[in-house]
Amino acid sequence: MWRDLTPIGRDKTTNGYRRYAWTEADADCRTWFKEQAQNRGLTYEVDRNGNQWAWLGDPEAGDAIVTGSHLDSVPDGGAFDGPLGVVSSFAALDELRARGAHPTKPLAIVNFGDEEGARFGLACVGSRLTAGQLTRDQAYALRDADGLSLPRAMERAGYDPDAIGPDPERLARIGAFVELHIEQGRALDDTNNPVGVASAIWPHGRWRFDFHGEANHAGTTRIEDRRDPMLTYANTVLAARKKAKLAGALATFGKVSVEPNGVNAIASLVRGWLDSRAADEETLAAVVGEIERAAVERGQRDGVDVRVTRESFTPVVEFAHDLRDQLSGLLGGVPILPTGAGHDAGILSASVPTAMLFVRNPTGVSHSPAETAGEDDCLAGVAALAEVLEGLACH
Amino acid sequence: MWRDLTPIGRDKTTNGYRRYAWTEADADCRTWFKEQAQNRGLTYEVDRNGNQWAWLGDPEAGDAIVTGSHLDSVPDGGAFDGPLGVVSSFAALDELRARGAHPTKPLAIVNFGDEEGARFGLACVGSRLTAGQLTRDQAYALRDADGLSLPRAMERAGYDPDAIGPDPERLARIGAFVELHIEQGRALDDTNNPVGVASAIWPHGRWRFDFHGEANHAGTTRIEDRRDPMLTYANTVLAARKKAKLAGALATFGKVSVEPNGVNAIASLVRGWLDSRAADEETLAAVVGEIERAAVERGQRDGVDVRVTRESFTPVVEFAHDLRDQLSGLLGGVPILPTGAGHDAGILSASVPTAMLFVRNPTGVSHSPAETAGEDDCLAGVAALAEVLEGLACH
Repeated sequence: MWRDLTPIGRDKTTNGYRRYAWTEADADCRTWFKEQAQNRGLTYEVDRNGNQWAWLGDPEAGDAIVTGSHLDSVPDGGAFDGPLGVVSSFAALDELRARGAHPTKPLAIVNFGDEEGARFGLACVGSRLTAGQLTRDQAYALRDADGLSLPRAMERAGYDPDAIGPDPERLARIGAFVELHIEQGRALDDTNNPVGVASAIWPHGRWRFDFHGEANHAGTTRIEDRRDPMLTYANTVLAARKKAKLAGALATFGKVSVEPNGVNAIASLVRGWLDSRAADEETLAAVVGEIERAAVERGQRDGVDVRVTRESFTPVVEFAHDLRDQLSGLLGGVPILPTGAGHDAGILSASVPTAMLFVRNPTGVSHSPAETAGEDDCLAGVAALAEVLEGLACH
Repeated sequence: MWRDLTPIGRDKTTNGYRRYAWTEADADCRTWFKEQAQNRGLTYEVDRNGNQWAWLGDPEAGDAIVTGSHLDSVPDGGAFDGPLGVVSSFAALDELRARGAHPTKPLAIVNFGDEEGARFGLACVGSRLTAGQLTRDQAYALRDADGLSLPRAMERAGYDPDAIGPDPERLARIGAFVELHIEQGRALDDTNNPVGVASAIWPHGRWRFDFHGEANHAGTTRIEDRRDPMLTYANTVLAARKKAKLAGALATFGKVSVEPNGVNAIASLVRGWLDSRAADEETLAAVVGEIERAAVERGQRDGVDVRVTRESFTPVVEFAHDLRDQLSGLLGGVPILPTGAGHDAGILSASVPTAMLFVRNPTGVSHSPAETAGEDDCLAGVAALAEVLEGLACH
């Protein structure tokens, strides 16, 4: 099963995955999902927002136990982020059947569309639409780097963009959602556990810092006549690391764009995107505030105008405590840990009782072709998920 | 004359010029040059390297006095860098004719191709080829951002790339070359002079700094597990400014490229290009060495591997002292000043007696749409160039 999925959307140069929403690679992943559902005699359906579902039992019965994740990837992403959850879901179902377990509730496996947001810049589009956290108008306004809108991209992929929108009836039929995911850090490795349960998702956001200086000749403009925004940007990058470290938070500049970006030209504009996360919203606001103050202060020295725009913000997600404790109990007291990454489970948690299982990532590397999990740990993940599904759906 | 040239290759959004070698905008500039030559009854020719010439008198006679500059631009460049020299050359010739001056030597106006190197990354391609400072093989290996080679680009523009190469016969016919150019700093403004004469061009070079870290998830990777090359880059940008300032030199990072350049991804690779210049080669080498040491040192702290590649280097150019003093004398003792910018005159100075005239730039802004010179100063430049041409060619 895993073997069929592995080659899809893999770039030969970087060995990383490029499975972006509504592309050919995405369509191939979707075909794989449909085949997995059909091979098992599950009821296959696509919801109004293009998310794929495979049902064991009556989808209409209610109080369904749903598991799954996503199959799309970040640019040059790894093999596990997303697919491990979907593959483990099918494998856990196989395990339940092999055990002869008899679910008393409907069971479903879901593949949420466009979780990573690599193409249209917004993460968790499929689950956000379903949960009513993204309006149809907002979704219609999304465009990819080539200027193609989300509805046109869906249409080209053979889906009906007229249908998209909130899906409360579907959510009402879900009793619990459990997403299994590779851990994106090394906390499980540090505590020597193959599997853990999520406690919360840190609040996080993206801020665009625009540093406006003055284009000029790099070879002739005296230092005292310069208004070089690259200096202000550089100082802000270092300030972000320093402030985050002091607060026990995270702050990263991973994306930059420069105008005119010429070797012998002092930049006129440097744009840097800050990704910042912390355990609580107060800490996050304080850290970003300090970074902004540092940027403005240095900007005054450099003759550079600094403007900061919050492009996105996701409040803290506390997973349902009952379900979390139930899962930890079913699995014999595995560790309960927070994460800094957003997930479809975080979106759904506002509407239905939601939990997450994490599988150990020995290097902690994520969003990179070097992302990896051991085979034994993956099997432990499947066993844990089977245990959880049996515990939730069969008793 | 100036009015016809102004709209060519001007971007409507930035108001800056995008006249890159062998593009449509470049072809339009070349048509303009040809018309200016033909309107004045000058002998028009294109040399083997695509440089345009307009001759008054016999091109074959030898000991020619040549003036001119270039018509191409940096990305979003200003209206004066290059064109002011070409327009002033035609205007100075008109002035000589109006005065009834009788040149005893051939006079020529030249438009050197691809001076800025905006498209193929190497400056002064036309003059370098002519002076034998760029081999045909090296020129053939140049590629633009779309991967199109220089010879194919020349071919598409209707020029014969088979012909390119050194042109010693042409150089041997030149008695002196004088290039008029807008000043790219504020030295003339500080001394309150509309026109000056160049003493030297500072040695300068470009170095590519590759900072190799490890791609990872910006939201989940603990600070102590990161190998973030953006930090090393940022520290190097600030070190470059500091080291240059201490040495009275210039050091600028104006171009950056980041992989994968995602908002929620710690970068795997940051490439920054350093442009550095100083009054002498020893100082330049010392400054760049210090910047490199600072980068490597910080890289060790960040777990980032730093590799530095020198992409180009131009030694100091001292303009011919006799000619320089003769010009200053003809112009009544105007200031003699150095510049940090490379020019075709710098390339030619290795082969023929060469001088430069600078016209005041009140803001010092260069390589930007905000670059400007006052009308009176431009006219003073034309008068000075006419004086110089008369002094060199008519006595």
